[in-house]
Amino acid sequence: MGIRVGVAGASGYAGGELLRLVAGHPEFDLVAATAHRQAGQPASVVHPQLAGLDLVLGPTEPDALADADLVFLALPHGESAALAARLPETVRVVDLGADHRLRDAAAWQRYYGGAHAGTWTYGLPELPGQRPAIAAANRVANTGCYAVATTLALAPLVAAGVVEPADVVVVAASGTSGAGRAAKTNLLGSEVMGDLSPYKVGAHQHVPEIKQATGAASLSFTPVLAPMPRGILATVTAVPAAAGADPRAVLAEAYADAPFVHVLPEGSWPHTAATLGSNSCHLQATVDVDSGRVIVVSAIDNLGKGAAGQAVQCANLMVGLPEQTGLSVFGVAP
Amino acid sequence: MGIRVGVAGASGYAGGELLRLVAGHPEFDLVAATAHRQAGQPASVVHPQLAGLDLVLGPTEPDALADADLVFLALPHGESAALAARLPETVRVVDLGADHRLRDAAAWQRYYGGAHAGTWTYGLPELPGQRPAIAAANRVANTGCYAVATTLALAPLVAAGVVEPADVVVVAASGTSGAGRAAKTNLLGSEVMGDLSPYKVGAHQHVPEIKQATGAASLSFTPVLAPMPRGILATVTAVPAAAGADPRAVLAEAYADAPFVHVLPEGSWPHTAATLGSNSCHLQATVDVDSGRVIVVSAIDNLGKGAAGQAVQCANLMVGLPEQTGLSVFGVAP
Amino acid sequence: MGIRVGVAGASGYAGGELLRLVAGHPEFDLVAATAHRQAGQPASVVHPQLAGLDLVLGPTEPDALADADLVFLALPHGESAALAARLPETVRVVDLGADHRLRDAAAWQRYYGGAHAGTWTYGLPELPGQRPAIAAANRVANTGCYAVATTLALAPLVAAGVVEPADVVVVAASGTSGAGRAAKTNLLGSEVMGDLSPYKVGAHQHVPEIKQATGAASLSFTPVLAPMPRGILATVTAVPAAAGADPRAVLAEAYADAPFVHVLPEGSWPHTAATLGSNSCHLQATVDVDSGRVIVVSAIDNLGKGAAGQAVQCANLMVGLPEQTGLSVFGVAP
Amino acid sequence: MGIRVGVAGASGYAGGELLRLVAGHPEFDLVAATAHRQAGQPASVVHPQLAGLDLVLGPTEPDALADADLVFLALPHGESAALAARLPETVRVVDLGADHRLRDAAAWQRYYGGAHAGTWTYGLPELPGQRPAIAAANRVANTGCYAVATTLALAPLVAAGVVEPADVVVVAASGTSGAGRAAKTNLLGSEVMGDLSPYKVGAHQHVPEIKQATGAASLSFTPVLAPMPRGILATVTAVPAAAGADPRAVLAEAYADAPFVHVLPEGSWPHTAATLGSNSCHLQATVDVDSGRVIVVSAIDNLGKGAAGQAVQCANLMVGLPEQTGLSVFGVAP
Repeated sequence: MGIRVGVAGASGYAGGELLRLVAGHPEFDLVAATAHRQAGQPASVVHPQLAGLDLVLGPTEPDALADADLVFLALPHGESAALAARLPETVRVVDLGADHRLRDAAAWQRYYGGAHAGTWTYGLPELPGQRPAIAAANRVANTGCYAVATTLALAPLVAAGVVEPADVVVVAASGTSGAGRAAKTNLLGSEVMGDLSPYKVGAHQHVPEIKQATGAASLSFTPVLAPMPRGILATVTAVPAAAGADPRAVLAEAYADAPFVHVLPEGSWPHTAATLGSNSCHLQATVDVDSGRVIVVSAIDNLGKGAAGQAVQCANLMVGLPEQTGLSVFGVAP
Repeated sequence: MGIRVGVAGASGYAGGELLRLVAGHPEFDLVAATAHRQAGQPASVVHPQLAGLDLVLGPTEPDALADADLVFLALPHGESAALAARLPETVRVVDLGADHRLRDAAAWQRYYGGAHAGTWTYGLPELPGQRPAIAAANRVANTGCYAVATTLALAPLVAAGVVEPADVVVVAASGTSGAGRAAKTNLLGSEVMGDLSPYKVGAHQHVPEIKQATGAASLSFTPVLAPMPRGILATVTAVPAAAGADPRAVLAEAYADAPFVHVLPEGSWPHTAATLGSNSCHLQATVDVDSGRVIVVSAIDNLGKGAAGQAVQCANLMVGLPEQTGLSVFGVAP
Repeated sequence: MGIRVGVAGASGYAGGELLRLVAGHPEFDLVAATAHRQAGQPASVVHPQLAGLDLVLGPTEPDALADADLVFLALPHGESAALAARLPETVRVVDLGADHRLRDAAAWQRYYGGAHAGTWTYGLPELPGQRPAIAAANRVANTGCYAVATTLALAPLVAAGVVEPADVVVVAASGTSGAGRAAKTNLLGSEVMGDLSPYKVGAHQHVPEIKQATGAASLSFTPVLAPMPRGILATVTAVPAAAGADPRAVLAEAYADAPFVHVLPEGSWPHTAATLGSNSCHLQATVDVDSGRVIVVSAIDNLGKGAAGQAVQCANLMVGLPEQTGLSVFGVAP
Repeated sequence: MGIRVGVAGASGYAGGELLRLVAGHPEFDLVAATAHRQAGQPASVVHPQLAGLDLVLGPTEPDALADADLVFLALPHGESAALAARLPETVRVVDLGADHRLRDAAAWQRYYGGAHAGTWTYGLPELPGQRPAIAAANRVANTGCYAVATTLALAPLVAAGVVEPADVVVVAASGTSGAGRAAKTNLLGSEVMGDLSPYKVGAHQHVPEIKQATGAASLSFTPVLAPMPRGILATVTAVPAAAGADPRAVLAEAYADAPFVHVLPEGSWPHTAATLGSNSCHLQATVDVDSGRVIVVSAIDNLGKGAAGQAVQCANLMVGLPEQTGLSVFGVAP
């Protein structure tokens, strides 16, 4: 008998990926999934890729999740706290929303508005000290997708004093699933195919999370929507703190024991398609010839290591399983 | 200790997918992989999605495969027979190439040219009688990708007398990985994105295989290259043999016990993205209002159920494992 | 002083393409454009590709079109008749909607529902006799996109007795702009990229128009949504009426004087990207080796020859200009 | 009788776009086009989007261009100088290659190798003083695609003292046609669709051109290949030189009279699809809330304003025509 798992907010893209991963997990039993408007629908109709899965979505209420030992919340920002408060303390919860990530309530209010719901254990296992912290927690705030890609690239370099924490510049492009499943004209296939479009330039709500997780003191972050369903490619540049440092070596050492973070061989650069469907992050770093800046590029699947995959990795730690259980290191390519 | 598996021809797209599936298979040990020009390269350099896999490609020679109990051949058409002849009889072999599929040597010569290499057990487990035949064989000819999509849609209807075997019309669109990994101008991303292009119109080499596998007596088959890496959508139409037949019901009954073939709920039509990375085939059927023709649509991943996935399914049967072992029913979407 | 032109329904994709073509037309002056919900918005905000165009959308009312000598209607099906009735008789009107295409009111009711608005001159100049008919008309019903692609491929063959009018089978794939600009989940980029999906299988509303325009007596028509913004590729197959006919030669003769219809050199097959942004249709034909069926493939830009381009071509004829004026024969590729 | 125009190197993507623009230009007569391996082929076979164009490619020799008053060179880097030297002085030449752009021979040798061919008039009309310089020249070095996108975004800000010339950081993503038409595995559609991949990180050969054209003193430039055929989106960030400057206003004033450069309304950000097939550049700027950096985003069609379109714009100036002649301000979208 496995861990009984529920998924709240199962009709979106992260929710669908959670269902796929939980249904295929050797130690998890998918016992419940919920949705708002699509409650009552078979999961396999809402997510045709799950044809063969025998599960009907329930309403997003605690009763619908009563059989679960562990619950993933994939709800719109601002809705997690209310539901989590109505679940028993003994139920383990991983929140894929932004509600419980920030330590600074003022930053929450500035970028999201409304009252801050409180801070949970930050769900990025590769940060120093986070594996035991996540294993000991029963409430975990899963890292945001842009924050995963940027933090894995930058945090070890800031921590090691290899780059200055000030004047970090990040341009990160994401596949369209990162923008969610709500029907909007600017997200129609006709508009996004063949198109690159920046958005929220100059003031993205993920900036405080990324600064908190990376140690950056000043951050210019520009997100771009790219014509592909999945994937994030983050180009992270920072001013070196000292001459002669080898950023690639620092990253390689930081992730020597991390099963999902791969510092590529020298000369190979990450690209997003290689991470599709996996929980892996690919990294490479160099020093720019002209400017001397350190450049790190990271690639992830925004629904994998950027959302559902990482949530399952955290859940594995919380219940005492090896973190790789039920997750793929290898991408589906081409 | 698992089944020791080798992959010959591991540098192409089907070869890469085989490596992914074998490396993640709970009962298979990936002991060897070979290539021609890329021999000596790490598999993770040839296939960046396999970052973390510790395996160097060997030359495509029997010696390089000497440790394997079971070998997948993913070689160019015409090369399988020579290599297979040099492997011990006791080694199980699944050939993903076309060499050993046809029973009619004349048809081989007409479409492929050269001497016919002989006929192996046909590797489509969902055909009547094929599961036990595959389980008893140590040489299996894996079905071609277009043939999988068309045969699963059509064969039960011909067998049941629901449609006429004459005047079958198929239009099937494939993702570009079906055209292989050789560098050709017409396969460049710049040319295929935003583009649909038919090819080999009027005389495709898969016609004899499809006729053999489906029972069709006359077949118009038009393949189209579609702007996506993976997936086949086959639109199969045939003249009904009798009024009032229910083609969907016939298909549902034929595949009631097939774990990878899903006849969708009425009103839902297959689409390729729902099968990405899986070994599933999605089917739906109706009778056309105007013409009275039976229309069946099938969707598969051409590298999954159309190639590497099905090869693993056959291999599972050959070694006595449940056919689902190490394969996913669910697609990676969006 | 040029022809003063108005566009009603300018906020959708066909409307945007009309604005582009009319604004760049050497003999047309774009004097008005209208929309429903987006009335009051600059055209360049609704259609960012028109940055630099100084025009604000008005409401979809006759007053907003009072300055126009010629009006294009790009309205939802069922709305054209009411607006057209309120325009002066002397104003020339090209309706891109379906309202006035069918001669058979019963067919209208069966596929669209509601009262039939009446039949206008059919706006496909390449059909025999249609150029003078269009030139003489002040009300023209522009051909539907699938009907253009299918009719140009098939009509000359039926007319010449080369193929049987019964048992025509068409599978036609369209870019997503053919599905319109309304925000729907199944049209999101995340869902359509990497995906082929059939729709309205067995009963598409364009069947009666295609039968009327081609002379087909029985038609199986299956439309497929393809992962690209624009383009239609129609694969049209029919039973030959006599042995030895040369369908390619019949098409080449039929279109010898048509500036926008290109029968490609033997061995070259149409593909959609080559027609992007143009008003051209590319054609090729052969006889299938196995089935003996005639196969014709046609490619168009669904917003070009399939909608706005052809509407401008008709308008050119109506006002006495050469039909090519302001239209491109050449596609934008790659 | 128009200007007689030849295109050398007409088989690549920039060459094909030149043919399209020249063939549709009201004052240019396309009299010759040349290629290496494809000499002897009809242009409409090499570029199927040019079906209907009656022109056979000649060899890349001066004789083949003897009828031309004006020649575009779209040759591989390093080949322009030799051919140009063999054309009469009176023939006007626009070189789309990199050979004659740099003023600094040392920078040429460092990034390209080999002897520097000399410096021609720099073909970016929107730079101060360049319109008259181009009009007076009979040898013009067309700007590189990344340099166009970056320079239009940055040069006015550096010139006005709004940003510091040091510590400029640019991340620019390009459609795959920017990588050329040579058949390479990493450019196959199967590999680029769904993929973002950085390349030449830390040392791109366009850095010296961009520094020369923008006035940047230090430049971190990271190019990324994006899954679309055309388009460049450049995200340009720089440190403000003084508090309170309004970068958008500076750009708007700089381009007030430039017909192809559009500073978008506040709140609208450039995206590449809106420029497809046009010669336009879309710009927007802001000041980043967290870092205080100035962020400018520019979008162009890499084959339009980034190559062939701009070459025609320069040629128009050289022969005394309005710079817009034969070019489109509006993009082909969706």
